[in-house]
Amino acid sequence: MCGIVGIVAKDHVNQTLFDALTVLQHRGQDAAGMVTCEGSRFHLRKDNGLVNSVFRHRHMRNLVGNMGIAHVRYPTAGSASAAEAQPFYVNSPYGIALAHNGNLTNSSELAEDIFRTDLRHINTNSDSEVLLNTFAHELQRLGKLVPSPDDIFSAVSHVHSRCRGGYAVVAMITGYGIVAFRDPLGIRPVVYGKRETEQGTEYMVASESVALISCGYKLVRDLEPGEAIYLTQDGEVHTRQCAENTKLSPCLFEFVYLARPDSIIDGISVYKARMRQGELLAEKALRERPDHDIDVVIPIPETSRVAALEMARRLGVDFREGFIKNRYIGRTFIMPGQKQREKTVRQKLTPIELEFRGKNVLLVDDSIVRGTTSRQIVDMAREMGAKKVYFASAAPAVRYPNVYGIDMPSAKELIAHDRTDEEVGELIGADWMLYQDLSDLIESTQWGNSPVKEFDCSVFDGNYVTGDINKSYLDRLDAARNDDAKSGNVQANSNDANNLLEKM
Amino acid sequence: MCGIVGIVAKDHVNQTLFDALTVLQHRGQDAAGMVTCEGSRFHLRKDNGLVNSVFRHRHMRNLVGNMGIAHVRYPTAGSASAAEAQPFYVNSPYGIALAHNGNLTNSSELAEDIFRTDLRHINTNSDSEVLLNTFAHELQRLGKLVPSPDDIFSAVSHVHSRCRGGYAVVAMITGYGIVAFRDPLGIRPVVYGKRETEQGTEYMVASESVALISCGYKLVRDLEPGEAIYLTQDGEVHTRQCAENTKLSPCLFEFVYLARPDSIIDGISVYKARMRQGELLAEKALRERPDHDIDVVIPIPETSRVAALEMARRLGVDFREGFIKNRYIGRTFIMPGQKQREKTVRQKLTPIELEFRGKNVLLVDDSIVRGTTSRQIVDMAREMGAKKVYFASAAPAVRYPNVYGIDMPSAKELIAHDRTDEEVGELIGADWMLYQDLSDLIESTQWGNSPVKEFDCSVFDGNYVTGDINKSYLDRLDAARNDDAKSGNVQANSNDANNLLEKM
Amino acid sequence: MCGIVGIVAKDHVNQTLFDALTVLQHRGQDAAGMVTCEGSRFHLRKDNGLVNSVFRHRHMRNLVGNMGIAHVRYPTAGSASAAEAQPFYVNSPYGIALAHNGNLTNSSELAEDIFRTDLRHINTNSDSEVLLNTFAHELQRLGKLVPSPDDIFSAVSHVHSRCRGGYAVVAMITGYGIVAFRDPLGIRPVVYGKRETEQGTEYMVASESVALISCGYKLVRDLEPGEAIYLTQDGEVHTRQCAENTKLSPCLFEFVYLARPDSIIDGISVYKARMRQGELLAEKALRERPDHDIDVVIPIPETSRVAALEMARRLGVDFREGFIKNRYIGRTFIMPGQKQREKTVRQKLTPIELEFRGKNVLLVDDSIVRGTTSRQIVDMAREMGAKKVYFASAAPAVRYPNVYGIDMPSAKELIAHDRTDEEVGELIGADWMLYQDLSDLIESTQWGNSPVKEFDCSVFDGNYVTGDINKSYLDRLDAARNDDAKSGNVQANSNDANNLLEKM
Amino acid sequence: MCGIVGIVAKDHVNQTLFDALTVLQHRGQDAAGMVTCEGSRFHLRKDNGLVNSVFRHRHMRNLVGNMGIAHVRYPTAGSASAAEAQPFYVNSPYGIALAHNGNLTNSSELAEDIFRTDLRHINTNSDSEVLLNTFAHELQRLGKLVPSPDDIFSAVSHVHSRCRGGYAVVAMITGYGIVAFRDPLGIRPVVYGKRETEQGTEYMVASESVALISCGYKLVRDLEPGEAIYLTQDGEVHTRQCAENTKLSPCLFEFVYLARPDSIIDGISVYKARMRQGELLAEKALRERPDHDIDVVIPIPETSRVAALEMARRLGVDFREGFIKNRYIGRTFIMPGQKQREKTVRQKLTPIELEFRGKNVLLVDDSIVRGTTSRQIVDMAREMGAKKVYFASAAPAVRYPNVYGIDMPSAKELIAHDRTDEEVGELIGADWMLYQDLSDLIESTQWGNSPVKEFDCSVFDGNYVTGDINKSYLDRLDAARNDDAKSGNVQANSNDANNLLEKM
Repeated sequence: MCGIVGIVAKDHVNQTLFDALTVLQHRGQDAAGMVTCEGSRFHLRKDNGLVNSVFRHRHMRNLVGNMGIAHVRYPTAGSASAAEAQPFYVNSPYGIALAHNGNLTNSSELAEDIFRTDLRHINTNSDSEVLLNTFAHELQRLGKLVPSPDDIFSAVSHVHSRCRGGYAVVAMITGYGIVAFRDPLGIRPVVYGKRETEQGTEYMVASESVALISCGYKLVRDLEPGEAIYLTQDGEVHTRQCAENTKLSPCLFEFVYLARPDSIIDGISVYKARMRQGELLAEKALRERPDHDIDVVIPIPETSRVAALEMARRLGVDFREGFIKNRYIGRTFIMPGQKQREKTVRQKLTPIELEFRGKNVLLVDDSIVRGTTSRQIVDMAREMGAKKVYFASAAPAVRYPNVYGIDMPSAKELIAHDRTDEEVGELIGADWMLYQDLSDLIESTQWGNSPVKEFDCSVFDGNYVTGDINKSYLDRLDAARNDDAKSGNVQANSNDANNLLEKM
Repeated sequence: MCGIVGIVAKDHVNQTLFDALTVLQHRGQDAAGMVTCEGSRFHLRKDNGLVNSVFRHRHMRNLVGNMGIAHVRYPTAGSASAAEAQPFYVNSPYGIALAHNGNLTNSSELAEDIFRTDLRHINTNSDSEVLLNTFAHELQRLGKLVPSPDDIFSAVSHVHSRCRGGYAVVAMITGYGIVAFRDPLGIRPVVYGKRETEQGTEYMVASESVALISCGYKLVRDLEPGEAIYLTQDGEVHTRQCAENTKLSPCLFEFVYLARPDSIIDGISVYKARMRQGELLAEKALRERPDHDIDVVIPIPETSRVAALEMARRLGVDFREGFIKNRYIGRTFIMPGQKQREKTVRQKLTPIELEFRGKNVLLVDDSIVRGTTSRQIVDMAREMGAKKVYFASAAPAVRYPNVYGIDMPSAKELIAHDRTDEEVGELIGADWMLYQDLSDLIESTQWGNSPVKEFDCSVFDGNYVTGDINKSYLDRLDAARNDDAKSGNVQANSNDANNLLEKM
Repeated sequence: MCGIVGIVAKDHVNQTLFDALTVLQHRGQDAAGMVTCEGSRFHLRKDNGLVNSVFRHRHMRNLVGNMGIAHVRYPTAGSASAAEAQPFYVNSPYGIALAHNGNLTNSSELAEDIFRTDLRHINTNSDSEVLLNTFAHELQRLGKLVPSPDDIFSAVSHVHSRCRGGYAVVAMITGYGIVAFRDPLGIRPVVYGKRETEQGTEYMVASESVALISCGYKLVRDLEPGEAIYLTQDGEVHTRQCAENTKLSPCLFEFVYLARPDSIIDGISVYKARMRQGELLAEKALRERPDHDIDVVIPIPETSRVAALEMARRLGVDFREGFIKNRYIGRTFIMPGQKQREKTVRQKLTPIELEFRGKNVLLVDDSIVRGTTSRQIVDMAREMGAKKVYFASAAPAVRYPNVYGIDMPSAKELIAHDRTDEEVGELIGADWMLYQDLSDLIESTQWGNSPVKEFDCSVFDGNYVTGDINKSYLDRLDAARNDDAKSGNVQANSNDANNLLEKM
Repeated sequence: MCGIVGIVAKDHVNQTLFDALTVLQHRGQDAAGMVTCEGSRFHLRKDNGLVNSVFRHRHMRNLVGNMGIAHVRYPTAGSASAAEAQPFYVNSPYGIALAHNGNLTNSSELAEDIFRTDLRHINTNSDSEVLLNTFAHELQRLGKLVPSPDDIFSAVSHVHSRCRGGYAVVAMITGYGIVAFRDPLGIRPVVYGKRETEQGTEYMVASESVALISCGYKLVRDLEPGEAIYLTQDGEVHTRQCAENTKLSPCLFEFVYLARPDSIIDGISVYKARMRQGELLAEKALRERPDHDIDVVIPIPETSRVAALEMARRLGVDFREGFIKNRYIGRTFIMPGQKQREKTVRQKLTPIELEFRGKNVLLVDDSIVRGTTSRQIVDMAREMGAKKVYFASAAPAVRYPNVYGIDMPSAKELIAHDRTDEEVGELIGADWMLYQDLSDLIESTQWGNSPVKEFDCSVFDGNYVTGDINKSYLDRLDAARNDDAKSGNVQANSNDANNLLEKM
């Protein structure tokens, strides 16, 4: 997963891009990058690390200009290399920089194609570089000295017709403007907003609305699936539907775990969705065990807190912060002659014994991926003296890998793959394993008169909305991941940052 | 405020010191340092920055040895300079490194004294350097080639008789052991614990028990006021009361704001204390307005959450996470030709409109210092459509500066200084200003049969337990702060890290 | 001026590229860069600084592959920016990296052209980026999936027909090979050589033969003017004449000052040329003053030493090292409140009083550019007690700016511009000013049966061999330089490194 | 070997200290350090690396004050560790910083002593730390609040009576002044000078006079053996003879190789001494082979050039620069899977074939240490076509290790150890091996009415002037060196810098 942002303003955009990236940092702690445009020159800075460490004063001084795009990166599913930060850049035509969130499922075929038809060299495994070159190629074919909005949108249309997968893209065309677009199924989110200043109106596109709000922009709306927006350097705004057969199918996992609760995606408040997850999960609990003996509901921080609070309320049970999370990220140094020590959940969470001793506790997490952490947490609850330990997941069992840009483990590493809910409960040591039903999760997210009729639920039901994912693709994905693991790529990442794989 | 830790183990201590510092990082994000001892050699690393950035692989490789001390620093009240990280070191006698948490109120007199009697040069404004040289001088006077526990404790006794203020100290004597001690009033906390390994028993002293727990140590107990502990390199443990007229008077503000909720200080669970703060505050609210019209209780994250949750429960009102805190710390870059932009609370908190619109909200914070943030938060609640905005503080009004090591602004900058509770309420724009009573705060912290009969409550009542603080001292403190502000020292800090001054 | 190198080998080339750059460091101390190719991937590292500081272990680890090019940079005449290191890179077609030594005199027209015809964005003021895009465009027009040697040479031919100026170029085509070529007048030098290994023959192209020799390669020959060489990744060698109307006219200043004495350029040993410069200069001295009273010949280190030694021999006068040069480069720090202090030649040279006291000394330098240094040196000689101070320049008076890649000051700053030899002598305070005659310099360089019939002597006679330099061009150059000076660009460089402007 | 400098001025001294270090850089390229004193505060910066890379703008900004000392370091003979840069610092008494050039031969005994009598901890293997603590201890015993010149000199006297070896020391006493002193035999050099400014007279002490001259100071004189100079912060100058039984016996190797030619040491011009070395060596050559067939004299750059030039003159043979030295220092990177490649002299020197082909050449070097380089150079001369290769050394055979601060290999690694001159000639492959006679070297250095009656010639004759060096000491030295070699310490150094061991 990644976060993207683009701004066309009336003053230097570097500080606001930085602020927006900080707000989107939860979407990727692995690398960060920024490109700004000053007249006909662009300035670039990107590196591995958190936003705060990638951009130092000396870089910001150089990142001048009233237009720019920026990116935070999570290692993307299917990408072998952890070495490439975004945005990427090509100088032909015009000088185009591009960053995206998502994953192309036909990336290697496209890369081959691009080289053969346009002789464009792809130097990394990143599908962003493929996307950029596809877009650049389509724009170059038109051969205009000054690309019109029609030209831009025509190029985007051709990109849609060639690319498969989920993608939310922002690109800057040196000297002209910024274009953003969203895949025809709207799997990955992207919104835009504006801000009035004395010099005129400024525009921002971003992965989540919270980036707009915290920078003083007002949310205008989400891009529709397949839609593109072109913001010219002069302040014009053009939007256009650039795909056929579009159908809004946003990634359901955004609402469960990925997005910030204070974001609104496709008209749905993530915060409200999570509250309702708690409600419906409480109702399922009451259906399963009308005479439950739960004494206290304890969230596993941070994400599950909203759902857990509502669940407690609906169950009529006390809600307590029984685990305190360490805000600061540690690290393990391998000294000469030492072996990698096992990381324990204890360094990240401290239990408050008072809330466990002699009680029947219901632990609530947003979801369970590998299950390693969950098992350790259940153990910890028992050590603290809990009588019974129940475990609730606000999402259904995660049984299938993600191919649209979320860095999840392969099927074999998913604890619920090929297992029933009960088997998972046994494995993590819970006295009661309570998974949300998928239909309930969908209902809690849609709620009422939602514009969203369908979600990508592939990690839960194995149904990939792009229709191009078969066993052979998943097998290749699996093999690639295993190669990574062997070569230590994955490990390198997990040392540096909070890793989604472990969800902590 | 600062955090300290010291370990005598059977294997290299650098990783565990690092882990412990990470857990104590909330006590100081300004600088970090570590000294380890390998045979008769010590190794030092200290610098400004977070623990994670100060210690890189190349430093850790060098920090070998089975014994060491470490420190995280907050700029200390009364210190003009932000440039000096701890531990400090003198080579005579033995080679001693020292780090401390707290503040000496007679630091400048002592520095003068130390130079005159012992010709010891003090190169910084840090009272830690003064403490170290006082201790070193007292130990040197004894002139032993191998200092016995009696010698160590004798030196500590002399330190107590010369030093005034609040201090929790850890020092390492090269080749011999680690000594820790606590001021005669026990103002600043320090605990010790142990861990059994196959090689033998390992010992740790630390500012808070959570550092022990998260590293797999068991809490033995707090040091008593005036008590010292001497852990020899060989694994012996010696403790001794080294002060006369001791009286346990821990800093009350630790329980309100400074300490982690999962710590236990002087036998008191910080978590429980904060719950009771919520209870008693709810009772005061019910006394003041038996027919209150509060619709929802909303904590101002992070610290106030525990108290707010309990307050809501007692009031029988919904508790909701109406503000989402940005986990990642931003920064403001001053570009050439730009002025410092005002930092707004909006970059740190996002309100969830749903929880405000049309409601009477009770915002709960742990305390109010300058009030700038509180005012912005009240404004934000109104913008979100709140009908009425009530504001509760789990601590009484902060009216006096701190002189025992908490970096608080001078009296003039405290919003409640020379103002009534109601006047503060008006200034921050609250429809109802509810401060905890000091007696309630004390009661909620002591609770039941507590070993603590008295607290340092100086920031609330102006009564400084060391008895040596007069108007002239406070005036000098004020002047020093103003000089700092002018010279930009304070600003330099506030750019780098979350600052207690603003409590966010 | 710059240095270039390219290698196609049977093993990793990074260390050898590094070694070669070190040997070519005298051609540019301003920036360094390297691109290597590993299969279809390239790896890049470039930054400001000396070779030794730009490439650290972590960079070298990444610069894998059996083929690569590298560059050291001097700020080029006419380039406003000091910010861009080489090689440059475009991904279309194939992925091409390019570095060059020289200067295009029609760079801005070409840049405009390239954007209009090919929509290629040029992001810097560097003519290397223009050259790269011109070459890339010509190659792309051919549209081959695998470019044949004919394709490569055809593209080079088109480059020659579009570009004006002096240039020696090395470019790498990802996955295919390395191409090098030289401008149709052969103004800038480039040689190639080979080395036999057990794995097969390895090839290197470089600015000077000494780079080959010191890396264990044997010099094959210089590239002819307009000629190109294409070294395929598999080890094939193709050469082709790619220009019409070629005429070997190498830059005469290479033999005076730029090149290392141990290099052989266009069949001429630089060392021998400098010896003969001394001989002919001695003969002129004897013609002018048959009864001269010179007591000692003293070179101004380093470059002039070879000529001075031979001059002394021919004059029958003692040769003495009267000035000792400080090998280590200093720097001037501007402290707050201080003004830039004048740099004096005294920090770079120390006179040996013994060799001056009471003697008539003949100081010999290779050339005089601004004259500031010369004047200070003459002063210093007098302070040391010299009776008379004579000054000889192995080159004629430098009266015109260079437009083929040597970073010389504008006409106004040249001490000999619009002045007679005698006037220069007066300005620098010499009792006798002895300039080499241009015809003698040419003769000393050609000598015997040389393949070089003509040189570019423009800095001496204002005759620019490319035929496209008029007053308007030189005026624009002047203006650009002045702008740089005002904006501090030039100063920034001169702080960091030995600067040709001052020739010390 | 090392270089030291100390300044008491009327303005900030950091820039001048930096300039002086740059001029003394040839005395140590391994590490650099500086301490300045501003009122009663000192500021320190030291690190491994060249002067230019150790001191960056941010450090210089901090190094304020009108008084300071500085140091460049070569790894000292007998020191196992390459990790400690100077100056060292102790805070008791007064705060003293110290740097020195030389080596204490009783360093370990002293360290033991210092700990036992004064409990002072020594944390490194550096004898500088021992010297500092000895001096500090002697000063502390006097117990003065303000040390008088008498106190300072008394402490120096005690240092002389306790320390053995060669040492030139500069120390700064915070708030009071700078003291410099020289060992009772004057083995290592130190001079002082002054500069008049509008604010008053400024003073500098330094290892070599060239540091004074290049910074605009005038040489006053050398310190006498055993003499100390005390420069107070207010500008007073006090000198005193602090040792008994002094006898000027400077290190003869300074005049052969270590010192810059433009320095004057103990009244002797290094330049003149080297000229005379050439003269006397020529006379020996003529004695040995009156009918010699030498065609050309070729120096091995840099150091031998002055002697070689004079030798050629006296022999009546042409002098030619047959080897060109690469000015820039290379480095060897060990790539994964590669072995350390042998460094060849070819990367440092390029021969000019013209000067060798068909000739009988006399190569002149200043001295021969290990002989590895000499052998490679002789080979290279033959490859270039020399008929006969003669080799002259301006110094006699180096047969014994140095114990006074020059980093030479152990006896076993010296090519001439236990070998005759002829055997060395055979080993390096020379057709004629011509070593200077020791008596000639002494004569050439003393010349005329020199104040120096005796030199330390121990590396040539094994006669150590301090009288305390016996076989057991040398054996321990040998063993320590071997341990270093095994642990890779020596190698670490030789990767970073030009190494005296190889004299290139």
